[in-house]
Amino acid sequence: MTELDLSLGSVELTRALCDIPSVSGDETTLADAIMASVGALPHLEVYRDGDTIVARTQLDRPQRVVIAGHIDTVPINANVPSRFVDVDGVPTLWGRGTVDMKGGVAVQLKLAAELTDPRVDVTWMWYDHEEVDAELNGLTRLARARPDLFAGDFAILGEPSNGQVEGGCNGNLRAVVRTHGVRAHSARAWIGENAIHAAAPILARLSEYRPRTIDVEGLAYREGLNAVRVSGGIAGNVIPDLCEVEVNYRFAPSRTVAEAESHVRDVFAGFELDVVDRASGARPGLDAPLAQEFLAAVGAEPRPKYGWTDVARFSEMGVPAVNYGPGDPSLAHHDEERVPLAQIEDVERGLRAWLSS
Amino acid sequence: MTELDLSLGSVELTRALCDIPSVSGDETTLADAIMASVGALPHLEVYRDGDTIVARTQLDRPQRVVIAGHIDTVPINANVPSRFVDVDGVPTLWGRGTVDMKGGVAVQLKLAAELTDPRVDVTWMWYDHEEVDAELNGLTRLARARPDLFAGDFAILGEPSNGQVEGGCNGNLRAVVRTHGVRAHSARAWIGENAIHAAAPILARLSEYRPRTIDVEGLAYREGLNAVRVSGGIAGNVIPDLCEVEVNYRFAPSRTVAEAESHVRDVFAGFELDVVDRASGARPGLDAPLAQEFLAAVGAEPRPKYGWTDVARFSEMGVPAVNYGPGDPSLAHHDEERVPLAQIEDVERGLRAWLSS
Repeated sequence: MTELDLSLGSVELTRALCDIPSVSGDETTLADAIMASVGALPHLEVYRDGDTIVARTQLDRPQRVVIAGHIDTVPINANVPSRFVDVDGVPTLWGRGTVDMKGGVAVQLKLAAELTDPRVDVTWMWYDHEEVDAELNGLTRLARARPDLFAGDFAILGEPSNGQVEGGCNGNLRAVVRTHGVRAHSARAWIGENAIHAAAPILARLSEYRPRTIDVEGLAYREGLNAVRVSGGIAGNVIPDLCEVEVNYRFAPSRTVAEAESHVRDVFAGFELDVVDRASGARPGLDAPLAQEFLAAVGAEPRPKYGWTDVARFSEMGVPAVNYGPGDPSLAHHDEERVPLAQIEDVERGLRAWLSS
Repeated sequence: MTELDLSLGSVELTRALCDIPSVSGDETTLADAIMASVGALPHLEVYRDGDTIVARTQLDRPQRVVIAGHIDTVPINANVPSRFVDVDGVPTLWGRGTVDMKGGVAVQLKLAAELTDPRVDVTWMWYDHEEVDAELNGLTRLARARPDLFAGDFAILGEPSNGQVEGGCNGNLRAVVRTHGVRAHSARAWIGENAIHAAAPILARLSEYRPRTIDVEGLAYREGLNAVRVSGGIAGNVIPDLCEVEVNYRFAPSRTVAEAESHVRDVFAGFELDVVDRASGARPGLDAPLAQEFLAAVGAEPRPKYGWTDVARFSEMGVPAVNYGPGDPSLAHHDEERVPLAQIEDVERGLRAWLSS
């Protein structure tokens, strides 16, 4: 079995995690390795559900913090195995998962192993299927099976935030916009109706759309509406009778999912539209006492989080949550995904200091 | 092995052919059945190349006619097996292949078996892969291996023409028009460039395009330019870096392939474009003496052929060629593909009369 050595430095551990591919749906090898290394630690109570692993201290501290990270990545694009590179003199680790988010997971695994006596009780969570439909997300499954495991006074997601603290997150909605036509031989196109041609206004509206930036509790959330997939056509000589454009709307946490859906339906008025995935955003929630202590301890200015993260899930469950992890979120999912080594070490130092103080 | 009984009436034989699925690339079962039935006929010399079968009389007649039909179909869409239906009182056979072109093939197989003493020597050809890339077409392969088999004074393709004689055919060109972008996480779309949005003008130009109708030797050829496929995107949360629109241009036989390509490049000026398939059209060619005799014998007014057919291949080889077969070409590739039974019998009668006279 693939093994993980939690006594490695957090940089080397990040590299080891990246070199065990774990594209969504294919996390078992990595989950097995995490289970084997964490399951051997006597100070943690460990629970596994599928490829999600929960490890808790049980020290009867007055407060409990949940610290979580997903172990899956988006598809690899010739960027595994990882490698060390020099970027303008900055020692850097390059490859899929370095940013989103095996750097954060490495720090968590290392601290889970080493902090046998933290100032608060800690519930560590490493979970699968974050990069795909919310319905498949390991935490969705866990919240049904063991909602008690989410209990806590504060939560930290190790999502990439450049080593800064990013509050809240945008909401996320995906919908399929569809046109229909009539099939016919393409030599007599006038007999049919071309569903791809009928989709021209959908792409035009997308390309003309100007996303807004919305202030929520002092942080500026930038929205986005994008086609993420398009498909249509069955053969080189057949007028297509169906065209589908899948769109992804990222919306500020001041909007509800229902408002977001209504906005998308307005943009594509006149077209058939099915919402296929939806997840609320989360307000920053930085006024919680533990959040304030945490900000002071790591010495960071809070910023808005653009990407949807599972902070929204904790926020909905009444647990204030922030994102804090190494890596530039702009490089997440990028073919040139890479993280400065110092950021991994800084986040390790920040979290260690706060949990040990 | 599946067997064909060539003593069936041409309607029943059409039905039997339709009920042996033979989507392009999967013609072997049908080709084996044809080979077994035709190979048993002592008056024909038979040659097989892959799933293409050639059967010739060798009667030393002063003239030779090539009569050909393809045995493949476009993909089935819940329309096999075939069935008899009544359409406004007209007895009809419904199902994939009834029009394009197993009705024509049935008539040919029946006459090949029964006309042991035709007035001209006949070269019968039944071939594979007509509905896909010209490069895969059984006749392309045969023309390389045995060009001598194409020798003749006149050729008839049994392509659907409503039992009328359709002269020449439009040319056919397919091209992929492509946009590039930069991948990024869809939560930070402004970091990437959306290739699907960039394709909006491609669909707009297609939907605004007005095809021409061009007179060639007295017949009016109607052109068409259509998207037949579109694809882009790799995941629900990634800004796509590639979008491809495959377009199909059907052009009047007065244009060369080079002129057609130049026209398509003009329409999509500014975009990357690769031509992936091209086939010349064919002028009507109805002034050939055998063509005139044939028109008189079957008593039909010539019309233009819109769809590209292998008449273009014969035309290029210097053999005048026409389309003559049962079925409404407007229903070719249609989910409701169907042929009036009387048309199959009319074409059988017309061909039989001319070949026997």
